[in-house]
Amino acid sequence: MKVYQVEKTLVSTNRIPGLKNLPLLVVRERNGSQSVAVDAVGCVPGDWVICVSGSGSRAATGDKDYPTDLTIVGIIDYWDEDG
Amino acid sequence: MKVYQVEKTLVSTNRIPGLKNLPLLVVRERNGSQSVAVDAVGCVPGDWVICVSGSGSRAATGDKDYPTDLTIVGIIDYWDEDG
Amino acid sequence: MKVYQVEKTLVSTNRIPGLKNLPLLVVRERNGSQSVAVDAVGCVPGDWVICVSGSGSRAATGDKDYPTDLTIVGIIDYWDEDG
Amino acid sequence: MKVYQVEKTLVSTNRIPGLKNLPLLVVRERNGSQSVAVDAVGCVPGDWVICVSGSGSRAATGDKDYPTDLTIVGIIDYWDEDG
Amino acid sequence: MKVYQVEKTLVSTNRIPGLKNLPLLVVRERNGSQSVAVDAVGCVPGDWVICVSGSGSRAATGDKDYPTDLTIVGIIDYWDEDG
Repeated sequence: MKVYQVEKTLVSTNRIPGLKNLPLLVVRERNGSQSVAVDAVGCVPGDWVICVSGSGSRAATGDKDYPTDLTIVGIIDYWDEDG
Repeated sequence: MKVYQVEKTLVSTNRIPGLKNLPLLVVRERNGSQSVAVDAVGCVPGDWVICVSGSGSRAATGDKDYPTDLTIVGIIDYWDEDG
Repeated sequence: MKVYQVEKTLVSTNRIPGLKNLPLLVVRERNGSQSVAVDAVGCVPGDWVICVSGSGSRAATGDKDYPTDLTIVGIIDYWDEDG
Repeated sequence: MKVYQVEKTLVSTNRIPGLKNLPLLVVRERNGSQSVAVDAVGCVPGDWVICVSGSGSRAATGDKDYPTDLTIVGIIDYWDEDG
Repeated sequence: MKVYQVEKTLVSTNRIPGLKNLPLLVVRERNGSQSVAVDAVGCVPGDWVICVSGSGSRAATGDKDYPTDLTIVGIIDYWDEDG
């Protein structure tokens, strides 16, 4: 898993039905690269979160057929950005 | 998932039957690296889109046996390229 | 698999139930990039460990539905950091 | 999927039985990094091809248990290397 | 698949039972990055080998539940390191 910071919600009106209504969030790794993650926890911009990638990200949504490759599975209690 | 911009259609006459007739599009990440994605939404060059990779990309086509590793699952309503 | 060094425990109170109570550890590759791994062995900060990624990391927890993408599967007896 | 150019055949006499007799080809991405792909189409050195990675590459061979992570699934009709 | 050169055996006494007694080898890509692979062929330090990653690496061990993400599946007959 990797640590990301939540940036904002991503709006995609025209999307496949399989994505359902789960929120899609833009998240950013410390090195600056952006990804889009499904939020299975409920978080807000600024939160430091743990994301699972790969097939584990589908299991994390509770629906193994959910078409994701990155899912937020936890909010980190305290993260020192300068690590 | 990652954000890509659609560039163009990719024509491959000689391909395995499993790819069927789904359109293959060349997409580009902001950093410039190109990939080829199956289009499950219906988009045009210039669109900013969300792509799912890995096994989730197969689920996104609606056929778990579809031989892809990258599928377009949504068009982004508004994307600020300068993020 | 990749070699990592264990840094510290990661505390995430607000997380999905599927993560259960397995410890989450921050691990670091020699090049400095950090990841978060589930500990299936029992290790302490400073240990050099082997981590499995991808779907194999879920098998390594003994629960194929466990939502991880990185699991510690062994402690290395002796690791010469300068390789 | 990614675009590669076929370089040459790779000979490996001592290999696991599961690889069967499918041809293994050395392919190269535009940035120069080499990989080894199973050829499910029938191509020759110099061809620009589409390769599927991950679990989709196994589906592409027609045998889900085939131990590959990269399979050539199509020859590109026309590829402008300078893109 | 990728080409690696075998460096040495990795000793990990404290490891999960699922890894069984298959040998773990440190392998190195041409660019220098190290990984740990399960040996399904039987090779020695210095050999240039083909490794399968991802879920295909588990199939390559003959046990789909084997917790690996990189397995040596063939020894290359002749590899010109200068490509």
